[in-house]
Amino acid sequence: MDNADSVGLRVFSLNCWGIHYLSKHCPQRYDMIGDMLCKEEHDIVLLQEVWSEKDYLSLKQKLGCSHPHSHYFKSGVIGSGLAIFSKHRIHDTFLYRYSLNGYPYMAHHGDWFGGKAVGMAVLKIGSLTAIVYVTHLHAEYCRDKDSYLPHRVVQSWELQQFIRHTSAGADVVILGGDLNMHPQDLGNRLLRTSTGLRDSYLETAKFDGCEDGMTLIADNPFISKKDLAPFEKGIRIDYIMFKGSSKVAIYCDLMSTTTGSVPEHPFPYSDHEALTAELRLETHAPTETESDRKSGNPASAAGKVAELVDIVTEARTEVKVGLHCAERMRYTATRTGVMGLALLFLELAIAAVPWLALGAEQPFPRTSFYMLAALCFAILLTTFLLYIFYTMELKSLQGAEDQMRLAVGSLQEKLRGFPLAQPHNTQRRPPEGLEPSAFDPEE
Amino acid sequence: MDNADSVGLRVFSLNCWGIHYLSKHCPQRYDMIGDMLCKEEHDIVLLQEVWSEKDYLSLKQKLGCSHPHSHYFKSGVIGSGLAIFSKHRIHDTFLYRYSLNGYPYMAHHGDWFGGKAVGMAVLKIGSLTAIVYVTHLHAEYCRDKDSYLPHRVVQSWELQQFIRHTSAGADVVILGGDLNMHPQDLGNRLLRTSTGLRDSYLETAKFDGCEDGMTLIADNPFISKKDLAPFEKGIRIDYIMFKGSSKVAIYCDLMSTTTGSVPEHPFPYSDHEALTAELRLETHAPTETESDRKSGNPASAAGKVAELVDIVTEARTEVKVGLHCAERMRYTATRTGVMGLALLFLELAIAAVPWLALGAEQPFPRTSFYMLAALCFAILLTTFLLYIFYTMELKSLQGAEDQMRLAVGSLQEKLRGFPLAQPHNTQRRPPEGLEPSAFDPEE
Repeated sequence: MDNADSVGLRVFSLNCWGIHYLSKHCPQRYDMIGDMLCKEEHDIVLLQEVWSEKDYLSLKQKLGCSHPHSHYFKSGVIGSGLAIFSKHRIHDTFLYRYSLNGYPYMAHHGDWFGGKAVGMAVLKIGSLTAIVYVTHLHAEYCRDKDSYLPHRVVQSWELQQFIRHTSAGADVVILGGDLNMHPQDLGNRLLRTSTGLRDSYLETAKFDGCEDGMTLIADNPFISKKDLAPFEKGIRIDYIMFKGSSKVAIYCDLMSTTTGSVPEHPFPYSDHEALTAELRLETHAPTETESDRKSGNPASAAGKVAELVDIVTEARTEVKVGLHCAERMRYTATRTGVMGLALLFLELAIAAVPWLALGAEQPFPRTSFYMLAALCFAILLTTFLLYIFYTMELKSLQGAEDQMRLAVGSLQEKLRGFPLAQPHNTQRRPPEGLEPSAFDPEE
Repeated sequence: MDNADSVGLRVFSLNCWGIHYLSKHCPQRYDMIGDMLCKEEHDIVLLQEVWSEKDYLSLKQKLGCSHPHSHYFKSGVIGSGLAIFSKHRIHDTFLYRYSLNGYPYMAHHGDWFGGKAVGMAVLKIGSLTAIVYVTHLHAEYCRDKDSYLPHRVVQSWELQQFIRHTSAGADVVILGGDLNMHPQDLGNRLLRTSTGLRDSYLETAKFDGCEDGMTLIADNPFISKKDLAPFEKGIRIDYIMFKGSSKVAIYCDLMSTTTGSVPEHPFPYSDHEALTAELRLETHAPTETESDRKSGNPASAAGKVAELVDIVTEARTEVKVGLHCAERMRYTATRTGVMGLALLFLELAIAAVPWLALGAEQPFPRTSFYMLAALCFAILLTTFLLYIFYTMELKSLQGAEDQMRLAVGSLQEKLRGFPLAQPHNTQRRPPEGLEPSAFDPEE
């Protein structure tokens, strides 16, 4: 790289746990976060769970000098909770709302009301176009029996689709956020393999922070050890990922996390640890043409495609499990609704037709009549709403499954086109910054 | 164009009006549509309002030979109604659901249940990557007092965002569908100016079909003249649009529409007219570099940006009107809910505290008590659901308004960067196929 030009880029990501009245020390923590961001002057700050717009606005005021550009992504009932602050001008933003996001009646989990989404911002860094994504996927409340798994897999699917399709014109791609997935979880593998995004924890030259890069740790005073079980020390579910292009190679020089406490403060910034990645962008004249880049090492490329076929097939299976579940739930709702209707008709019949009362001395007691009728109506309304909701869930799951089937077909076709197809031989990695997406249509 | 390579591409678009039991002659019309498509062998067929998946599947079976590749986009309660059939392989698909889409309680309008969206498909046509979009925006039920206008403007905004951000890697971009907007409507201008998409009716060398390219005409037996008033002859609301790239120039050689009847059949294919555009793709070696293309004629480019600033500002005003409306509706829902709650408390108080009954001889009649309580609960539930719904509507409108404000700021910044800014001088058009998007970040 003779004509290389190097730019440093510091990226920060934190799940702020900003639920007023429920999260502990919320205002104090926002003060701490604001002070730290003002002092640290990261290039790009990606925040999640900023549920209150007021908190965003006060951060915006505080960071007016260090981060003149910012955007808050609005969605759902409460909001997406996603915010971005930047030293570099934000030229454009876009929001994609995930089609599945838990259930409205699971109000104590709250995910549905949050309107989970992925926010996108187009930044100009010198002459480079950087596309930055911030997201927060559905929480995992119980790893052994995770009823939200199909939803999270579909969210990963939509996230990778959104990134792949919107980042074609980018020189630099950055994703930060709380993915609520462990490093080897299906959704995470799907995301990385299909987009070519690289995990800064795995790529960094130097790491400073929690053991194994964990971001939800037992040492954090806001975390109860019970919630982490069976992972005694903690888990890694927050990420900063990046990808270069034919014009820019990216290296991660240093990655760091907070470690459950903040010096000179009684408590940490959040229940999650904060992540900082120090990236280095090496711009070079595009000496390699697009086709050079794509051909790369055919064996490695074929291995990558074969790996992706396996992952998408696994994701499809998971979505099918979700489909089966949603169908069963819709069937139950329908059956309950029909029973409610039958009960209502029976009641009306008994009240209207005297001989049906089977010679009871008393007529149908009025109070019971109205109470029973109200119950029937309540059942009918609830089951109707549930039916509508499950139908929407089914459509989204079916839609994702269709897209996955199509993708697998297309990938298999591509695999047949490789001259030296050697599946599962993915050890050799293409040169830094040139990681292509396995979904790129073949030439 | 010495080293030009020419490919023909026939694109078809039709709103199928496929509401079983409600649309007239639905099965017969699908038979006619299938036969025609099988015979005509268009390269790309874009259908809207295919509400039943069964109809899609039977079309798919019928078109197995002529159009081996197809995709049906699922969304919402009923579905998006969008389908694509293609002679060329579909490599990938993606769906974007609009954040606003009417009101669920306007069930007779049905738009909310349809889950309006824009479907995207990535096709390979020879060595070219074509990205094809199919969409259907919210209907206009009353032009004079169009309460859905802010929703449709936000849909246009999201549509142009989606197209701009996902089409960066495309050689050819095609959009077909029922936009439910007249050619000079705000949303339509916004879409064309921001994406650089060109309307095939305006661009075609030769046109054959209804006067002024109308697609909803009084001569169609399924249309009542009353619905069209004050447009006696009809309106143009269905479109096929296209855009080339630095690699491909596109020309429309012939555009045609059906004219309200089909020879040898007693009725037309649908209540909308079908559109066919015969496009010609001229591939040439990219002699001009990206920066050449972007600089183009600075006066014309500045004029384009200035025009876009005006349009986005106009759209922002419209969204603000929608915001105001949604706020008022939410306020009304809140007030009604509070009244329901007050009524419930009053009732409970009267029933529980004897002296509040003001010495009435009779105790609180039981029947009335339960009926009143049921009424209160019904009010509370309804207003709660409405409150949630209006809050989501507000968030989406605010989100769109934020994005528009940011876009205007960015565009104005760009405008200041032009050396010879001559706003509103947009007469000269850049060479065919090289229409840039005014949103492209400056170099």
